[in-house]
Order: sequence, then C-alpha cells, then structure tokens
Amino acid sequence: MRPLKAPIFQRGQLHDTAGCGRHLRCLGPKLVLITDEPIAALHAESFCTGLRAEGLDIQMLILPSGEHTKSRESKAQLEDALFKAKLGRDGVLVAMGGGVIMDLVGFLASTYCRGVALVLIPTTLLAMCDAAIGGKTAVNMQAAKNFIGSFYPSDVTLIDPQVLSTLPMINRKEGIVEMIKHGLIAKAQAFAFLEEHLEKILTLEHSFLDHALKQSIAIKQRVVEEDPLDLGVRAILNFGHTVGHAIEAESRYQVSHGAAVAIGLVAEARLSYEYAGLAKPDVERIDKLIKRLKLPCEYRSGSVDAMLQAMQGDKKNRAGQVHCVLLEAIGKVKQFENLYTHPLSLDQLKKELGA
Amino acid sequence: MRPLKAPIFQRGQLHDTAGCGRHLRCLGPKLVLITDEPIAALHAESFCTGLRAEGLDIQMLILPSGEHTKSRESKAQLEDALFKAKLGRDGVLVAMGGGVIMDLVGFLASTYCRGVALVLIPTTLLAMCDAAIGGKTAVNMQAAKNFIGSFYPSDVTLIDPQVLSTLPMINRKEGIVEMIKHGLIAKAQAFAFLEEHLEKILTLEHSFLDHALKQSIAIKQRVVEEDPLDLGVRAILNFGHTVGHAIEAESRYQVSHGAAVAIGLVAEARLSYEYAGLAKPDVERIDKLIKRLKLPCEYRSGSVDAMLQAMQGDKKNRAGQVHCVLLEAIGKVKQFENLYTHPLSLDQLKKELGA
Repeated sequence: MRPLKAPIFQRGQLHDTAGCGRHLRCLGPKLVLITDEPIAALHAESFCTGLRAEGLDIQMLILPSGEHTKSRESKAQLEDALFKAKLGRDGVLVAMGGGVIMDLVGFLASTYCRGVALVLIPTTLLAMCDAAIGGKTAVNMQAAKNFIGSFYPSDVTLIDPQVLSTLPMINRKEGIVEMIKHGLIAKAQAFAFLEEHLEKILTLEHSFLDHALKQSIAIKQRVVEEDPLDLGVRAILNFGHTVGHAIEAESRYQVSHGAAVAIGLVAEARLSYEYAGLAKPDVERIDKLIKRLKLPCEYRSGSVDAMLQAMQGDKKNRAGQVHCVLLEAIGKVKQFENLYTHPLSLDQLKKELGA
Repeated sequence: MRPLKAPIFQRGQLHDTAGCGRHLRCLGPKLVLITDEPIAALHAESFCTGLRAEGLDIQMLILPSGEHTKSRESKAQLEDALFKAKLGRDGVLVAMGGGVIMDLVGFLASTYCRGVALVLIPTTLLAMCDAAIGGKTAVNMQAAKNFIGSFYPSDVTLIDPQVLSTLPMINRKEGIVEMIKHGLIAKAQAFAFLEEHLEKILTLEHSFLDHALKQSIAIKQRVVEEDPLDLGVRAILNFGHTVGHAIEAESRYQVSHGAAVAIGLVAEARLSYEYAGLAKPDVERIDKLIKRLKLPCEYRSGSVDAMLQAMQGDKKNRAGQVHCVLLEAIGKVKQFENLYTHPLSLDQLKKELGA
C-alpha cells in the first residue's frame, strides 16, 4: 500500500495559494478539483483561481451534494468526464468537501488509470477527523454503506480549520460525534475534554477547536498506522457504526452519517453495558454528552427488521454473524480472544433496537 | 501492494481436486467461482462439483463471454450478486476463463469490501502467459481499453496447460501473439524457439507447448517483479499494444485482442525500424512469423482518425503525446533517456497507419 502520511494541519493555509501551489505542483502537470455545489461557491472557485494565478493547470468538476452522490454511477460519470478532459496517468485529483467527496474521489483516484495522485482537502469537521485520515475510500451500494472501495492514502492532505467558519451548526455536531467516538475507543482524556468544552468547540473557539481536532486526528492516525489494511485493531474505529450504518441504509441515507452514528454510539454503549461490562455511569455519561448535542438519540420510525437486515451486510461480520465493537470503559475497547469485535445474535440486537 | 506470487504450473492439476482443495481451503470459508458460458460447461461445473466433494462451499456465477463483459456495468452486477449471496470480507473469488474474466474478476476482488481473496485459473494460452501474471486488473470504458482498474496480485494462480486441449485454434494463435511479444522485448532465444517450433506449439505438443509457455510466463514474471506498479520497465510489455489497443477500441472490440496486437506488433516493428534502428531483416522476421499464424496483418477497414483518437487516450501517453515502445533489436527494447517509450507525432503515426 501507499504510505500513510500525516495531514498538514495549519489554520488559514487555504488562503496561502503560493504555499498550496508548492504542495501540489510537484504531483503532476494537470489537476482536476472535484467538489460539491455548496463548497464550490464557498471555497473551491476562489481556491482554483488562486492556484491558476500561481501557474497551475487546474479544472473543477462540481457534483450535487449528499450521500447519494457516493455511488458507483457518480464514479463512472466522473471517469467519463476525466477521460474527456484527457486526464492521464500523470493527472492529479484534488478532493475538496466533506466525507462523501473524500471517499468518492479517493476511490476514483485509486482506480483511474490504475491509480493517480490524490490530494484531500476536507471542509467539514467530520471529514477532517475521519474520512480524510487513513486511506479508506468507498462508494455505497443501495443496500450497504461503503461496500465497494479501496485502501488508497492521499499524497497530500491539507487541513485548515478556518474553513469551518462557514460550516452549519448541524454539521459541526456531526463532526463532534466522530470526535466523541475517538475519545471513547482510545483516550478517556479526549472524551473528558469534549465533555468540558463542548460548547466552545461548537462555537468554533479557535484554541479549543484546534486542540480537539488535532487530538482526534492523532487518535485516528495512530490506529490506522498500526493496522492500515483493517485486519485487526482498526475495527475499533467502527464503534457506533454497526447500528449507525444500519440506520443510514434503512433510512436510504435520509438520516445523516453523524446523526446515525450518534444513535449508534448510545445504542452500542448500552450493548457494551450488557455484554462487555461497561459501567452504568459511563453509559450515562455517553448518553448525556450526545444529548447535549441535541441530535436525535433514538430511531423508532424505521423498521427494525430492515435495520437487522442491513446489519447482516456489515463488512465486520464473520461467518454470517453480526459483529459489534464494545467498550469495557470509556477510552478502552473490550477484546474478545484477540478479536476487537463481538458476535451478537439477532435476538440480542432486536432487544436493543426495541423490537 | 500485495506480493506477486509465482503461479503454480502443473499439467493436469485441475483434475486433482484434492490438491486444488488444499490450495483454496485456507483462503476463506466461502468461495464464488466466476466464469463465462463456454468455460462453465467445459471445465468450471465439474471443477466445482469436485471441490464440493472435498467439502468446500463454492458457488458459481456465469457471465456472457466476450470483451463487452469487461465493463463497469458487469462489475456492478457481480457486486450486487455477491452481496445477495452474502459474501463478506472473508470471501474468496475464483476467476476461471480467459483474459476478460481474469481482468474483470481481479478488479472486482480488489474493491469488493475493499479487497477479498483472489484465485486465478486461466484457461486460454493468452491468459496463462499474460492476464493471469502480474497483478494488473481492469475494465474497459467504451472509448479506452483497461482504463479503470487496480494492481491486485492473486493469492493463488493455477496454470494447467491440459485445459488448452479444448481451446479453438484461433485462440491458440492469439496466445502465441503475446508469447512472440515476450520474446521480442526480452529474449531473442524465446522468439527463435517460437520460429522453430510454431506448428508443434499450435498443435499442442506437450513438451514444446509447456516449454514455450513456461518461458513466456517467466519473462513476464521477471518484468513485473522488477516494476510491479508500472512506473518504469514494465512499459515494455506494451510493445505492439499502442496500435493494438487502438484497433480494438476503434473496432468496438470486434477485432480480438490477439489479432489486434498481431497487427500492432508488425506496425510497431516498422516504427522501430524508422525511429529506433531495428534492422530491416528483423522487421521481416517478425512480419514472417506473424504471417505464419495466418491472422490478419493489416487493418484498413477502420478509420485512421478514430484510431489516432483512441491512441490519444493511451495510458502510456505523457503531456498529451502518444508514446510507443520501440525495439532496437529482437529481444531488446530501445531506451530513450531512461524512458522505455518514445513520443511519436500524429504525422508519424498517420504515415505508419497508411493514411
């Protein structure tokens, strides 16, 4: 696999087009930036204009925003567009946007001409601490999230928390959900920092936001470096996601990733209490912190059977059985005979989902 | 990248289902064999029956045969079918067939759940000495051959020349075209062996066929081991393919890969005479050997403009210019300032293509 490089974290760097030009120029002679409609208007157009002034050959392709864009069909349309633009093996793809754009363009870059250079510029809190870190790429199938994809770390990742000033509150909350997860699986202190300073982070106070973000990125970077191909410990990043992905799939992606994982964290914390010895007060701390985000914490409108069916397509499953990551404490995942996931029966899951 | 393992070459091994079972059992609990219609009837059904008798859980998916199957659409249909069959990350894909099946199923395996185990069982001469060796996978876009794909070497490759007894004469010839290419780019002696024993190989005399095949596989294996990611010397394997791929694309894959490359070898030998100092008698030796195969050696029915356009989408191109591999002698590719390809202008190409 290509090396997993640490991202370049610097507040304000996207306005330093000379600096960005230096990072990108050496990757290839022709660049195509791919983004979605809102980000094109907010950041990408001016970014491209700046790079062109630096002498770079950069075009822009704009996609509709939303999880539905992360599909095999979008990937094929982009391939056709890149071919038409005569992008060859020495081309460079620049992904600017949230997780959908990171995952889709990463996957596109990994198979276009069997792999071209890739630059990630995440513009959401969620993408900065999750999708842009660790080299996983994917598209969804209708029935299963992230089912088709690759391991393809970027050549360069630029993280500029300055761009978050335009991020709607709901998306800030979604990012914080993933930061909470990182604390839960690896660092109790990071979880406590979020408990203490949640409101300051939500209102984007620089020093608190940057600290929380760096801490969260560092946790993810450490886990993926230990297990780049997702053969062992990397599974812990999936805490909250067995239930979360099932909610997303069952709602046909009407429930956002962040909101679905928030529900998933609470549900899987309860499962951790039942099956992994997580203390009741810790379940309550998790529940309470998620509640302060004022995201929905239950999901009763969907069909439990459909969710169970979605879980049965989860990539962590083994021998046809649903596997879940469970906590033994805040900051620590429970291991079961050297595995980081635990099989749960349909009855156990049904009980938790309230059927 | 995954390691490039040498194939297991053994005449008759596909009838030794206990032996094959031992190779495959350790890869995962659930196997899906993917093949095309003719190979299903000739080899795959009995192979699966044998493995089931050995206790393996193996299903079969059957595709229509032909280059059109090697598409993004086929890949998506297979993904849907595998998901429906509940194949997970611990699944094993077995590709049995010619180059189309090797390339398509290899690509499928590389992105399904971000990569599952892969077994290649080539059943054509061409696939044995080319597609099944070296880890390149791909599908075609309508306008460009092998444009979308990955590097994904197999876990196990089983080569059994016994299965070639059912291979039609035209397909034997197509395989020999690639063997000729291997001699031309790397080993004059291998080319001379084919000149001397062409008819015995075509009629599948075991010792001659097996020797030629092993020699050809060894050449390709050596080149790809030196340059697994196609960043340098591996380009030489593309001799004959700049023109060959253009003919295939222009004919919308009505001209077979082997026949197109045969024309490409002769055309690029003439270009080598013009621009790389290949001796006239060597051009004639190449022309003569290809003629003995009684494959078409010219292609005048298609549009030269369409072919030139197809060449401009070739993955070897740099800075928008068509690049070709050229020979300085039989068995030796000409290097140009450490590059293995040489830029040719549209006028130079037009002249060769007879416009």
